[in-house]
Amino acid sequence: MTIDSNAAQEADETDPLRSFRDRFELPEGVIYLDGNSLGALPKGVRERVAHAIGTEWGTDLIRSWNSAEWVNLPQKVGNRIARVIGAKAGTVVAADSTSVNLFKVLSAALNLNPGRRTIVSERENFPTDLYIAEGVARQLGGKHGLVLADAPQDIPALLDEDVAVLMLTHVNYRTGYRHDMAELTKAAHEKGILTIWDLAHSAGAMALDVEAAQADFAIGCGYKYLNGGPGAPAFLYVDPRHHGGFRQPLSGWFGHRVPFEFEPGYVPSGGVEQYLCGTPPVLGMVALDEALALWDEVDMDALRRKSLALAELFMREIDAFADEFGLRLVTPREADKRGSQVSYACENGYAIMQALIARGVIGDFRAPDIIRFGFTPLYLNYAEVAQAASILRAILEERAWDRPEYKVRTAVT
Amino acid sequence: MTIDSNAAQEADETDPLRSFRDRFELPEGVIYLDGNSLGALPKGVRERVAHAIGTEWGTDLIRSWNSAEWVNLPQKVGNRIARVIGAKAGTVVAADSTSVNLFKVLSAALNLNPGRRTIVSERENFPTDLYIAEGVARQLGGKHGLVLADAPQDIPALLDEDVAVLMLTHVNYRTGYRHDMAELTKAAHEKGILTIWDLAHSAGAMALDVEAAQADFAIGCGYKYLNGGPGAPAFLYVDPRHHGGFRQPLSGWFGHRVPFEFEPGYVPSGGVEQYLCGTPPVLGMVALDEALALWDEVDMDALRRKSLALAELFMREIDAFADEFGLRLVTPREADKRGSQVSYACENGYAIMQALIARGVIGDFRAPDIIRFGFTPLYLNYAEVAQAASILRAILEERAWDRPEYKVRTAVT
Repeated sequence: MTIDSNAAQEADETDPLRSFRDRFELPEGVIYLDGNSLGALPKGVRERVAHAIGTEWGTDLIRSWNSAEWVNLPQKVGNRIARVIGAKAGTVVAADSTSVNLFKVLSAALNLNPGRRTIVSERENFPTDLYIAEGVARQLGGKHGLVLADAPQDIPALLDEDVAVLMLTHVNYRTGYRHDMAELTKAAHEKGILTIWDLAHSAGAMALDVEAAQADFAIGCGYKYLNGGPGAPAFLYVDPRHHGGFRQPLSGWFGHRVPFEFEPGYVPSGGVEQYLCGTPPVLGMVALDEALALWDEVDMDALRRKSLALAELFMREIDAFADEFGLRLVTPREADKRGSQVSYACENGYAIMQALIARGVIGDFRAPDIIRFGFTPLYLNYAEVAQAASILRAILEERAWDRPEYKVRTAVT
Repeated sequence: MTIDSNAAQEADETDPLRSFRDRFELPEGVIYLDGNSLGALPKGVRERVAHAIGTEWGTDLIRSWNSAEWVNLPQKVGNRIARVIGAKAGTVVAADSTSVNLFKVLSAALNLNPGRRTIVSERENFPTDLYIAEGVARQLGGKHGLVLADAPQDIPALLDEDVAVLMLTHVNYRTGYRHDMAELTKAAHEKGILTIWDLAHSAGAMALDVEAAQADFAIGCGYKYLNGGPGAPAFLYVDPRHHGGFRQPLSGWFGHRVPFEFEPGYVPSGGVEQYLCGTPPVLGMVALDEALALWDEVDMDALRRKSLALAELFMREIDAFADEFGLRLVTPREADKRGSQVSYACENGYAIMQALIARGVIGDFRAPDIIRFGFTPLYLNYAEVAQAASILRAILEERAWDRPEYKVRTAVT
């Protein structure tokens, strides 16, 4: 399907996903190309959280751990995420942050592969994943080394018999490059290497099948394409063949076999629950739970087709003026090598993004020089994407970004 | 001050804290003696969270990381908690769960005290603290041993030159026994031992001064006496002399010196921020932030006096029939040895608590045989406490607990 700006309106009219836009509360006058950083607000979340506060907490108080089943939220929400990433019920829990969950599964993976001393990842991986790997390696006494590939194609050559774990983010946060999860997992397994996939930029952005790919572990984020709200609980997946195989070190009471017996010694639950730690954050959990309700209705293949088509439309529109203004596409053009975002390297990227935001096109900037646009098929339409490209062109032609106030970096970019 | 059931009403009329009751939404017909498990809903939280969802998330979207200062919530909320526990601004952050925070500070403490191989705690400590200590010790290669005192008075004799860390919960979750934080910390420091205090059952229940006590680290819970809501973010305190001294292992991006520069290597923030890990859970953070607003107005000495008086009234009322029905007080009678709860061991404790709940008196049961009553001075009054004791007496006299449906244990007790 090739859609140009003239055909955008027609494409919107025949879009099989068009009804989902009405499931979100979107502000007027904004084209939101940052759902890969914070997903928009699904309708129903506001009411669900209000109920959790007013009735479950305010009126029913402590009884809601049973009556509102707060105690099962990590598993209930986990099972909803499982369906989005191609996993079975009972293999995913929602808990903690992505970083904390990586700490758990990386610790587990290294302990399941004793004697091997290398963790392979990418220099361009999302930094917190690398920071956590540093933290785990240091805690384990410094005997593990972190080897970072400079480019995706360099990874297979790094997979040797000393590698314990291959830890990758499926879709790169800056470039949008998408790894072949099944192929790299297969290559890793052939060398006895366990795999951890960070699905932060893919869960909810495309059809996924962690089970078919035979991923050992996966982690991911609740607040990007899953629309769970700012700082929503994260998730983790553990292949059933590793359930019960190892005690992860964040061995808090919610991972205990019988937490409410208050036994002095830790005995892990046999299932994925042993990757839980402390008391679940109920308000964030119910928001995420409500946000996930719509996924049962989503045709994931249609979602991926629309995601690719939105990004192609955007890239084609930008092609017309990219060279003139020094925009260098860093996202692969090949559909099977990208996620659901398009990024350009350019001078003055930060100021250009501020000018875009001032005109209602919200994307983001990633240091040192990337402007990044995310395409969320559930609530974006083709006409908006064409319009966003045209606003970018106008900003570049008018040098509208060249103002002092657009060059002052805020705390969060 | 001695208050009996006849004087309860008068005591309520002259209670200097009586106006705080109106700052909470409390259900009709309930005497809530479980604020030590889940604090009641402060007025204003509902609206604050609704604003965070509707306006900050729904309308302002990603921009709220700057405009609503989501990015500073861990420090802002931490500073509010600092005032409640007697710490300076810049020494406390709100983050993660109590269990995860214990993992961070215990790891830090063990690394600050290399060569010593023992962690001292109590067998009766809250189990998740012991589970986490097991997890840390295992992750560090099994060279650390956990030595558990059988009773509080046995602790000093265990503090020798091989002890790295003394890790205690200030007020015991089952018995309500309160340690002398300053005295035990002094005894520990004399032997070169670092201290970690879990303030789950004391923060918001009494005046605290972690700085005067020279505690090295403290952790605590946002959802008990701080009323932050179910699964609220927890907190941690680090004495400034340990800031920058060690990289805690959960080294996620929010603890980085410059998280939004996306550097591949971890460089910790020099302050307490290095104990942050992943993206803060915004909905839980704003609820807790709002709940904490009232603490600036609370006279902490008056709070402690009322807490003790409420509990004394309850104990005295129960004294009249405790022996007859086999209730054995497990909470110390001495005011300086208890927190803000009263617990009894008894046969059929679970069923008795169910009967109490059915009659509107909400406390809880802690395996194997403890019925537990928490006294939250901000929203409880003396008349309610006297009435709760009288309802307990009626239940025991009528054997109202002796029903099959009261003996079926729920998931959470």
